[in-house]
Amino acid sequence: VIATSYRVIYGDTDNMGVVYYANYLRIFELGRNEYMRARGLTYREVEARGLKLPVVEAHCRYLRPARYDDLLTIETRITRAKAARVSFAYALKNEAGELLAEGHTDHAAVGDSGKPVRLPPEVIEALAAEEA
Amino acid sequence: VIATSYRVIYGDTDNMGVVYYANYLRIFELGRNEYMRARGLTYREVEARGLKLPVVEAHCRYLRPARYDDLLTIETRITRAKAARVSFAYALKNEAGELLAEGHTDHAAVGDSGKPVRLPPEVIEALAAEEA
Amino acid sequence: VIATSYRVIYGDTDNMGVVYYANYLRIFELGRNEYMRARGLTYREVEARGLKLPVVEAHCRYLRPARYDDLLTIETRITRAKAARVSFAYALKNEAGELLAEGHTDHAAVGDSGKPVRLPPEVIEALAAEEA
Amino acid sequence: VIATSYRVIYGDTDNMGVVYYANYLRIFELGRNEYMRARGLTYREVEARGLKLPVVEAHCRYLRPARYDDLLTIETRITRAKAARVSFAYALKNEAGELLAEGHTDHAAVGDSGKPVRLPPEVIEALAAEEA
Repeated sequence: VIATSYRVIYGDTDNMGVVYYANYLRIFELGRNEYMRARGLTYREVEARGLKLPVVEAHCRYLRPARYDDLLTIETRITRAKAARVSFAYALKNEAGELLAEGHTDHAAVGDSGKPVRLPPEVIEALAAEEA
Repeated sequence: VIATSYRVIYGDTDNMGVVYYANYLRIFELGRNEYMRARGLTYREVEARGLKLPVVEAHCRYLRPARYDDLLTIETRITRAKAARVSFAYALKNEAGELLAEGHTDHAAVGDSGKPVRLPPEVIEALAAEEA
Repeated sequence: VIATSYRVIYGDTDNMGVVYYANYLRIFELGRNEYMRARGLTYREVEARGLKLPVVEAHCRYLRPARYDDLLTIETRITRAKAARVSFAYALKNEAGELLAEGHTDHAAVGDSGKPVRLPPEVIEALAAEEA
Repeated sequence: VIATSYRVIYGDTDNMGVVYYANYLRIFELGRNEYMRARGLTYREVEARGLKLPVVEAHCRYLRPARYDDLLTIETRITRAKAARVSFAYALKNEAGELLAEGHTDHAAVGDSGKPVRLPPEVIEALAAEEA
């Protein structure tokens, strides 16, 4: 599990005084970017190898609201990295350690042509280090 | 089912040349706003009655990419409106009628105090008209 | 002047209960997309010709707040289209016709290589039709 | 001048492969949030005193594109804090120290009723410490 901090800005919130529901997916993206950086293989580097990992499914459960200026922690882990599919799971917590939201994203592996490809062994190895 | 149109702007897209995955949830919101307006009870009016419907779960499957300037149709229907819970289902299509994404959102009914409340009969009646 | 409608969604608003200041620039983009479409030359077509018009300057004055579910009108006109520069001016109004915000964007003309280029005559002609 | 770091996510970028122009205003907001925190008076605290600082004018010049995964520095300073008006200036730089964008925002001081108010002396003192 890789933990990343994020402080909520006004632009993340909505009329209800809480973080807008779509913006949790931005925070999940931050989590997986930093997960990959911590594993030594940034998503920018993955793309430089001609591989893309577009999201094919996203899910989020909203348990407690996040508010303006809250300092959040996004805990990211990988739950699958094989064949042509990668999955991440996320847990978003506030400073008191309370769980605010949890979710997952599933990603396809596609080549520059947009066709599905198998994940190269070194990518699987980097991403899935945790599972070993 | 209520169908609403939305044309993709540059601000919806990302570095991959497609609509960013979080922005589909914005388009889903547009769909449920217009669903409620078509049923004669806008979400603004729901809030004016002291009722809020925060999202407690969101899910999206991404099938084909939506791109800049695409004219999309978001088809919205209600799948549940009882007790203290409302659920919407969404299908996003392009001009050729191809399904680009589908998803759902579940909403709790809460009062001004933030406490869960039962949906008033007239709200259920308006939202669930379709199911009758 | 081309007038385009936009209805504010929850995702546009912030903790202050009004449209977040950055989101006015999204609405300005909508205005210029529809301005170009009305002139018979969409921005998508401009890009298909190998020309890009990145924003080099943006300015907005916020006069009255726009709120959730407000039906806005964005009036867009072109104020310059020559050499390697295009400028748009925007006026955002509510249903009562009150001016909520006004602003402008300046755009450079660049080729596929990212180098500045002169606007092709047919692009100037289309964009600047109003000025004639 | 207070310097704050921000790393660009995919959700900030657009179809042109660069940060979408409206999102620079999000990054400016981050800069002024952290400016105020560094001065010992967060904007959340300002609001808790019944004072709001809505943006009345925003301006940005875009000089060089910011791209996905770039680690940016936003340098924020205050250029005015008196009567009922506060102004911030921003300079956005990349890791090489190159200036990518610069801009400013002007803010009105309003009370809970939405009416303009004079800035309390302790707010001016905190915000304008730098000018002394």
